[in-house]
Amino acid sequence: VQRAWIIAIGTELTLGQTVDTNSAWLAQRLAALGLRSTRHICVGDEHDEICRVLREALAAADVVLVSGGLGPTADDLTRAALAEVAGVDLEEDAARLEQIRRFFVARGRDMQPANRVQALLPRGSRALENPCGTAPGIRIALGGVPLYALPGVPFEMRAMFERHVEPELRDSAGGAVLLSRRLNCFGVGEAEIGARLQDLMVRGRNPEVGTTASLGIIGVRINARSATAVEAAALLDSAERAVRTRLGTLVFGREEETLAGTVGHLLRERGATLALAESCTGGLVGKWITDVPGSSAWFRGALVTYADSAKSSLAAVPPALLASHGAVSAEVAAALAAGARSRFDANYSLGVTGIAGPAGGTPEKPVGTVYIALAGPGVVEGRCLRLGADSSRAAIRERAAAGALNLLRLTLLEPPQPAQLTAAQTGGPAVT
Amino acid sequence: VQRAWIIAIGTELTLGQTVDTNSAWLAQRLAALGLRSTRHICVGDEHDEICRVLREALAAADVVLVSGGLGPTADDLTRAALAEVAGVDLEEDAARLEQIRRFFVARGRDMQPANRVQALLPRGSRALENPCGTAPGIRIALGGVPLYALPGVPFEMRAMFERHVEPELRDSAGGAVLLSRRLNCFGVGEAEIGARLQDLMVRGRNPEVGTTASLGIIGVRINARSATAVEAAALLDSAERAVRTRLGTLVFGREEETLAGTVGHLLRERGATLALAESCTGGLVGKWITDVPGSSAWFRGALVTYADSAKSSLAAVPPALLASHGAVSAEVAAALAAGARSRFDANYSLGVTGIAGPAGGTPEKPVGTVYIALAGPGVVEGRCLRLGADSSRAAIRERAAAGALNLLRLTLLEPPQPAQLTAAQTGGPAVT
Repeated sequence: VQRAWIIAIGTELTLGQTVDTNSAWLAQRLAALGLRSTRHICVGDEHDEICRVLREALAAADVVLVSGGLGPTADDLTRAALAEVAGVDLEEDAARLEQIRRFFVARGRDMQPANRVQALLPRGSRALENPCGTAPGIRIALGGVPLYALPGVPFEMRAMFERHVEPELRDSAGGAVLLSRRLNCFGVGEAEIGARLQDLMVRGRNPEVGTTASLGIIGVRINARSATAVEAAALLDSAERAVRTRLGTLVFGREEETLAGTVGHLLRERGATLALAESCTGGLVGKWITDVPGSSAWFRGALVTYADSAKSSLAAVPPALLASHGAVSAEVAAALAAGARSRFDANYSLGVTGIAGPAGGTPEKPVGTVYIALAGPGVVEGRCLRLGADSSRAAIRERAAAGALNLLRLTLLEPPQPAQLTAAQTGGPAVT
Repeated sequence: VQRAWIIAIGTELTLGQTVDTNSAWLAQRLAALGLRSTRHICVGDEHDEICRVLREALAAADVVLVSGGLGPTADDLTRAALAEVAGVDLEEDAARLEQIRRFFVARGRDMQPANRVQALLPRGSRALENPCGTAPGIRIALGGVPLYALPGVPFEMRAMFERHVEPELRDSAGGAVLLSRRLNCFGVGEAEIGARLQDLMVRGRNPEVGTTASLGIIGVRINARSATAVEAAALLDSAERAVRTRLGTLVFGREEETLAGTVGHLLRERGATLALAESCTGGLVGKWITDVPGSSAWFRGALVTYADSAKSSLAAVPPALLASHGAVSAEVAAALAAGARSRFDANYSLGVTGIAGPAGGTPEKPVGTVYIALAGPGVVEGRCLRLGADSSRAAIRERAAAGALNLLRLTLLEPPQPAQLTAAQTGGPAVT
């Protein structure tokens, strides 16, 4: 596999005022061409530092992609750095100058003298036409390593890459392809997922399997390399089957699929509807659900009962229950779920109540204590989540919302168990 | 000025599957400490390559920040690479192991054997406690250069940096300081903000003023450089006054302040409460409000009336109104606001109804048509927002939620106008 380095130039990047999204975009496109990007570097608008990075890249990589530093102002230094590294002069390219002039004429504007420098190219390089702006790109080979310098503005960079760089690289890459797939999991920690997938995660294997974690969602990333896209896809399929065998219902979706989207599919298949009663999540579960286009087919609505009085008046939680067990309790979570189910006349309903912090914790119920409950046909279920007093308010709320949706997902996947039916019959939630 | 290198580790980064946001965040925080980050590098989960990058960084920089690769699985290689570069063994840190164990106990989960590796530290290094997760950070000095290895999960990385790294670096820094401040604005586009601030935005000025735009929120960024933090802060203060003079009530907050947070302050000052009736935003306004710690003091709750039947049964919208004007109408928005205000017995209430797409648009009410309404003491106000059929569902929902909160903010800032009182008296919303 050929190795690519990707360099992004601009002091706004090294100061952190702009996040470099160009390099990730380029890396994905290179991977699809079978080029593995092994290093991304951001460097500021400093001539010597840019030259140093270019020399390092040309020594280590089989192809180098650069974005940024091609504008008309004094802090655009890519042209001069390329000339210095190549040991050549900058020359004005007459065709390029004419093109820049035409760009301004077409927009009824005068070309500024500063734009003239954009027609300068290192001797021996080739200009890449910019379909969207004034900065031409530059293609140069240094010591046999091809280097492409593209503009920093993302949409100009993308257009130029697709038009001029991708076709050349596809011809020269000679086949090897890297395809990628992500499976999204919920229910256990990253270490347990890692333990179950240990043999698949051995270094250097193809396909390569790795994990990432974010707020309780564990992503299992599969990367497959092969000579052809068809072969790589077959490798992905077989690795996905192996992962699913080990993880079962921990896997809830692929790529951008969310817990809410998966729950929506399951409800749709069953012709069932959903309602919510949210306290500590304050609308977050509803927000996630209505992020899903078409969710009006199965989502009836939510009661966000932040004030305790609203829990009684809207979700019909008996005031005596609130007084005896407290608003954050298994009993109130179950009553919230039952109340919303009845109010919205829905098949299923979720209730969420907890202490998101930073204030409000007690020794018995510290910050991070959340009760979730599910009411449905023949089933009442509950869980107590301990989401950690050290976690942020945002993290506690996201994990609580995900936990609630996951409880519904698992219930929809499996027929109710006798124990759960008993709990439903006795009217009490099975808190586990 | 001291030079910092920032390294982000993870194959998901070099493959472009995840955009590295950690490095930009770290660079900003380092700049505020007077440390200039001159290079950011992303490198994959490859032992030799990580060692190479660490050696380069230690040779070139005065301080090195690393994020990622501290998890419990086989592709987490930062610990081993640090040990190799330092030429020392990894040792189990008993205190750290105990802390990881406690993390799981507190959450009622079993510690996996794999998590044990997270207690390994290169001999001679120091663990940095992780306030939000299991991966401790590592502080090590190599050839006199301090290196901090932090977790890759952004919120864990940020919490650890603020708690353990920032205080140490602040003590050791000294020297030129770059301070930065952001003012958040809502109500007009970036171009209009730019036109009003033209003289302040001249290049090369100190303080430097620039704008960014995201989903209707315009950020005005002020960067001030000076020898001391006191001088830089004074420059920021004077630039902030100049910006506020030109923008008036378009400015709603500073830094991380949100529209919901600002609205919360204003309600608290007035001892007033808020309720919501959300249709197309599906809980998003409530989510934003309850993101604000302590919002239970002024937020009563929300009715998420996604189904039309719920609009009538819960928010008391007359079915005849729904039939004659449609669920997406100024009249229904006003009725939703009034219904929620009464249901929750709140001083103010917002109603939101609209077409977020992708389906559901008509020629008269295309996708992106949203009606927002405010009900309060002596005031009923409404707006029709046209949020663009080309915008995404997510963008339409975010702009609608922001527009609703902004309507309340402006009402709370100003005494009711005669025209609005008239609208309230006639019972109809003033749709503008």
